[in-house]
Amino acid sequence: MENLAVNGKGHLTFNKIDTVLLARDFGTPLYVMDELTMRKECRDFKESIAKYYGGHGITAYASKAFCCVQMCRLIAEEGLGLDVSSIGEIHTALRAGCNPRKIYFHGNFKTDEEFAYALDNKVGRIEVDNLDELERLNVVACEKNVTADIMLRVKPGVDAHTHSFIKTGKNDSKFGFIIENGEALETVKKALEYENISLKTINCHIGSQIFDTEPFVHTAGIMLDFLAQIKAELGYEVPELNLGGGFGIKYVDGQEPMDVGECIESVSLRVKAKCAELGLAQPYIILEPGRKIVGDKGLTLYTVGCVKEIPDGDPKVIVDGGMTDNPRYALYQAEYEAIVANKADKPKDTIVSLCGRTCESGDMLGEKMPLQSAEAGDILAVLATGAYNYSMSSNYNRMMKPAVVFVNRNRATVVVKRETLDDLIRNDVV
Amino acid sequence: MENLAVNGKGHLTFNKIDTVLLARDFGTPLYVMDELTMRKECRDFKESIAKYYGGHGITAYASKAFCCVQMCRLIAEEGLGLDVSSIGEIHTALRAGCNPRKIYFHGNFKTDEEFAYALDNKVGRIEVDNLDELERLNVVACEKNVTADIMLRVKPGVDAHTHSFIKTGKNDSKFGFIIENGEALETVKKALEYENISLKTINCHIGSQIFDTEPFVHTAGIMLDFLAQIKAELGYEVPELNLGGGFGIKYVDGQEPMDVGECIESVSLRVKAKCAELGLAQPYIILEPGRKIVGDKGLTLYTVGCVKEIPDGDPKVIVDGGMTDNPRYALYQAEYEAIVANKADKPKDTIVSLCGRTCESGDMLGEKMPLQSAEAGDILAVLATGAYNYSMSSNYNRMMKPAVVFVNRNRATVVVKRETLDDLIRNDVV
Repeated sequence: MENLAVNGKGHLTFNKIDTVLLARDFGTPLYVMDELTMRKECRDFKESIAKYYGGHGITAYASKAFCCVQMCRLIAEEGLGLDVSSIGEIHTALRAGCNPRKIYFHGNFKTDEEFAYALDNKVGRIEVDNLDELERLNVVACEKNVTADIMLRVKPGVDAHTHSFIKTGKNDSKFGFIIENGEALETVKKALEYENISLKTINCHIGSQIFDTEPFVHTAGIMLDFLAQIKAELGYEVPELNLGGGFGIKYVDGQEPMDVGECIESVSLRVKAKCAELGLAQPYIILEPGRKIVGDKGLTLYTVGCVKEIPDGDPKVIVDGGMTDNPRYALYQAEYEAIVANKADKPKDTIVSLCGRTCESGDMLGEKMPLQSAEAGDILAVLATGAYNYSMSSNYNRMMKPAVVFVNRNRATVVVKRETLDDLIRNDVV
Repeated sequence: MENLAVNGKGHLTFNKIDTVLLARDFGTPLYVMDELTMRKECRDFKESIAKYYGGHGITAYASKAFCCVQMCRLIAEEGLGLDVSSIGEIHTALRAGCNPRKIYFHGNFKTDEEFAYALDNKVGRIEVDNLDELERLNVVACEKNVTADIMLRVKPGVDAHTHSFIKTGKNDSKFGFIIENGEALETVKKALEYENISLKTINCHIGSQIFDTEPFVHTAGIMLDFLAQIKAELGYEVPELNLGGGFGIKYVDGQEPMDVGECIESVSLRVKAKCAELGLAQPYIILEPGRKIVGDKGLTLYTVGCVKEIPDGDPKVIVDGGMTDNPRYALYQAEYEAIVANKADKPKDTIVSLCGRTCESGDMLGEKMPLQSAEAGDILAVLATGAYNYSMSSNYNRMMKPAVVFVNRNRATVVVKRETLDDLIRNDVV
């Protein structure tokens, strides 16, 4: 992570702010996110599209990674679009003042109510994931006497992690239509026939935590072949190509994220060459990073409750949060790096298990983690928690969700307030 | 599950109420719980303790399984106690009017604020899980000039699923003190020395989804040996023994829950015999079932969004909920049974994957599930979702948490209201 340092007290600082003081002032657990590097990442994407593709495209932040009103506002201020996947995310974006035309509404099941809400609010693109949705969206649009501008989600059959074009695997995804067996083309044909549907975009998503440009370049080629096939067989040139997200970030040593500029340059070159080869106009390109914008821009601060010695096992460091604020270890055994914030100048001379505080033996944040010698009362930082932490948090054990703070130029600002006891029973009928 | 039937329309009924009508009236996803069988289960525990142990004990419902104000009220009305694991669960119980003396406060990390809240509200027993907590609780109690009645959590070293007394494994738990190596006895000694601490209970928990009485009987013996050791070496007779929970329920065929009465009878016989043998007064017994009270008393209703055919794979049935309302398949590959509620009279002639609606490929409720032929618009019931579903639910993808309805004698009552769009941004700073 950028912007981490150690001050004269031996405390971990984040964007020059002492994290121990953040814990004291805002309480723990606490999500802290660096506004500066988030904005820098947004600009990196925007400028790269300008530089390598003549600005003929947009980056739409995948808000499922971390969504709140202030985050959506930051995205809007940086001129990015927003990838949303529910009416809840649209509502948040609108509350933040985002331009609805820059909202891309995804998901493999959207209700009629959500279609209506999206159309009423002039959401830019509505993804169609299956035939039932295509029919229902047309009906809703027809009733409102409007045209729904759609993205059609397809499966390019690419496994980003093996770089192979495979028959099964990605074609086994729950999302979208298969290109390979003609299902996608058949759907495009239907979409073109519907009165109140306008097909604007073909979109895909090939995976997560990708560290290499090649899968993106390879996928761009497959997608353009499909656009050429649509043009040849149906006489329609789809104007936009959405290549999804999946840009990897560094959670632990050994993970080497790709350079955004280089990736966009490579993809742009491929798109331009392929379009020339196929006789296609260069499509407007949409990229949808989520984790990449926020993941390694955030950390979580906890208070250590106790350190429990285990015979023949690693000591257990127990903190005042856990799977309720970060379920990714419980779900995927996702790896994180941790630092004792008030002993950041000390060597990591112990190997520990990091446990959460709920009554659940699976409530862990990591195993075999190198850490400074910890004791009750220490402040512990878990790094790179900006994505899929707050957004996946729960109230299990009736834990209250932590606050989220943005730091920027020596200032810390609460962007999501800590939940209260009364929040927990707000919807309980009493 | 009890109380399931099929009516003349071929619809699944739950406690005589048509589930298709429940879905229509309250919307989906919807948690539905059968008040009648929950109350019956409560009485089963209470009466068995009365019958086999002279009523010298209590059943404390583990509220982490499913907690809301109305659920706590039901528990109080049935005369049961409550096992809680956070200030949030205490707050809910108090709001429901539960007797605080019957609240057992668990967990491996409780803050000073929580200790103070528990003492101020006269919570019956506060568990001490580690030495730091023992010291901190004594300080807080001292400041308030009160005595904290504590439970001391120990590791009996029992693996409930192999019935073996093992050196590692359960001694590797994050909860409590090890009996075997003297750690627990040493802690009892310290607890007895603290001025503002009164040791009332030794407690343990040996696992989840246990289908056999033997591990409970075996554990009771180990715990009583420990009580005898305390008496012999420290001259103090601990008055209460808390054997925790772990009573299994049936999720799918092949799981045979034990009879509560038989289990309590067996444990009671063992406790009485062992006490006579060791010269101990029979301790007050506390049992803490959670899942057993609610798990197989609830189901979740979904609307099917689409059924997606997959080449060389099982069709994917996509519903309007998923890991956000039931993360147990994503977390543990937990198995469930599903029924198409509006086709409940039809044979289960397909094998499907059941997928949720979030933008996450791991959002599934099951694989290889037998199901009636499903199509978009069908109502689908997933059974035995009463425990660890609502309580573990999240707002991932900014999904709104479903409502919870209690059914009883042809009446359906909302006990937790469905979340709204404004709930999602309630704590966002705008």
